[in-house]
Amino acid sequence: MCVLGVDLGGTKLALAIFSMEGRILAGESVPLENRKGTEVGKLITEHITRLIDTVENQDNHIRSIGISVPGISRTDSGSVWAPNITGWDDYPLMSEVKNAAGKIPVTIDSDRACYILGELWQGNARGCNNVIFLAVGTGIGAGILVNGEVLRGSHDIAGATGWMALNKPFLDEYKDCGCFEYYASGEGIAKAARAILKEESEYSGELKNKNPQEISSYDVFTAYEYRDPVAVKVIESCIGFWGMAVANLVSLFNPEKIIMGGGVFGPAISLIPAIREEAVKWAQPVSINQVRIEPSALRGEAGVYGAGFLALRALSKIR
Amino acid sequence: MCVLGVDLGGTKLALAIFSMEGRILAGESVPLENRKGTEVGKLITEHITRLIDTVENQDNHIRSIGISVPGISRTDSGSVWAPNITGWDDYPLMSEVKNAAGKIPVTIDSDRACYILGELWQGNARGCNNVIFLAVGTGIGAGILVNGEVLRGSHDIAGATGWMALNKPFLDEYKDCGCFEYYASGEGIAKAARAILKEESEYSGELKNKNPQEISSYDVFTAYEYRDPVAVKVIESCIGFWGMAVANLVSLFNPEKIIMGGGVFGPAISLIPAIREEAVKWAQPVSINQVRIEPSALRGEAGVYGAGFLALRALSKIR
Repeated sequence: MCVLGVDLGGTKLALAIFSMEGRILAGESVPLENRKGTEVGKLITEHITRLIDTVENQDNHIRSIGISVPGISRTDSGSVWAPNITGWDDYPLMSEVKNAAGKIPVTIDSDRACYILGELWQGNARGCNNVIFLAVGTGIGAGILVNGEVLRGSHDIAGATGWMALNKPFLDEYKDCGCFEYYASGEGIAKAARAILKEESEYSGELKNKNPQEISSYDVFTAYEYRDPVAVKVIESCIGFWGMAVANLVSLFNPEKIIMGGGVFGPAISLIPAIREEAVKWAQPVSINQVRIEPSALRGEAGVYGAGFLALRALSKIR
Repeated sequence: MCVLGVDLGGTKLALAIFSMEGRILAGESVPLENRKGTEVGKLITEHITRLIDTVENQDNHIRSIGISVPGISRTDSGSVWAPNITGWDDYPLMSEVKNAAGKIPVTIDSDRACYILGELWQGNARGCNNVIFLAVGTGIGAGILVNGEVLRGSHDIAGATGWMALNKPFLDEYKDCGCFEYYASGEGIAKAARAILKEESEYSGELKNKNPQEISSYDVFTAYEYRDPVAVKVIESCIGFWGMAVANLVSLFNPEKIIMGGGVFGPAISLIPAIREEAVKWAQPVSINQVRIEPSALRGEAGVYGAGFLALRALSKIR
């Protein structure tokens, strides 16, 4: 008896067969390679079908399937909005996967919900009831657990942390992604470094041999290790914003833990003490002393673990 | 059959007898008049005892008592932390009231929880599951309803909205009350006006005959009606901060409604369209179109209604 977790990302599809205790029995990862619309749906259903057969041939059974999607899963219609996958404005993923899965129950949820559920099942949120996964990658979002349940809001889009207003006055640049995401996402870090380099004619630091237009947040973190002045400026600004965001989550939710994850945490994990120091300045002073700030235990696998836990939970609800 | 709602404020005690349908049968309000510590406890128990007797004499029965406190009610110990009442750092209110109430069940909760419960019962939150009461008075706090339940967090102090970080860089002035409260509470409005007047030697507007040290937020709103330049400057800054705060609540919680209440809303109710306009700039664009921003229906009575609803709900849980 096992469950299947499927994590659809913006660039790859990851699948894992989990034992009921949460051990990965088998896993695979497939790049999306510019697939769009129904091609992505087909990739998912093909892999699910094949894994169901493979497991059957080993005299085992997939009892439930959970899927994490990079966007919003509409629980009523079963359709998915995923801004980074072309043609997925209102994609009928649930009905397609149900066709492939037959009688096996299918559950779909947003990546941010899955991140926190993954950590709750097998990571740093184990045993917590009020805990937040702040995911900082290309964009920024948060999976928020309130009394053991994922916060969904009135229309399933709670946790849009990237839109947090943190810096007056409003700039037009915030319009497409939100103020916090503009400054402190992976994309924000890269853009900020590019913008400074464009102005600095006499710069001769770590990033000087890069084509400015190709600088990534990873490059900026590498340069930061060498105390490159441009990288230091960009990352210190981010520490300020991450600290304010953590403070706001602490003051509003009074959580027992905030887990920093996503691609940027990653290299930014070593900055958590500095982020905490910033947060202490801003946050409700009692709450900030009640919260632990920790890195993700599952890193890049938080999504697929969360999908596995979705599958497992659905099973316990059915029984 | 009836329930008793008790609303302890920073300056007065309000009590109301409610019918089970939420109609006020009798009510009274008593100023605290510099009472502190056990004197405040005694005032509460005396009034409760007298009301129990009065109702008995009318052949009716108080079946349950709810109490709203201006601070934090610790559900485990039954003690109360109320910063504006001297000697109430850890006050044993529950045991005192239980002594007075005999077999009648007693429930205590924070004012911000009671505000949103009051609106849920008899005000603008009726029928809502995900709704926020943003209380802007001397200070700022929020009662937050998630899936029909009050958000409490890990240690009962969720909703500390006044501590929201909204303006870089950090200033020492934010240390005692939080950034948002510093700028946009009743106290913040008064302080900002006083500070500007201190600098303006040639000012001859609406506030010129006031002793600057005695200017209140009420004075500033009155002057704003006459487009006094100092008042306009202060209130327009507040509109900006209220808009950012509303935006952050919308992006994080995706609520169906935000209710603006507290003493400042009040005179600031007419500013709600301008606040919405600010919030639209910052907030997650889908969520902001799903939220209604409304004034409190119960105004100064939201707390006592919420206390009444606490009492009623306790009864339905007991049965």
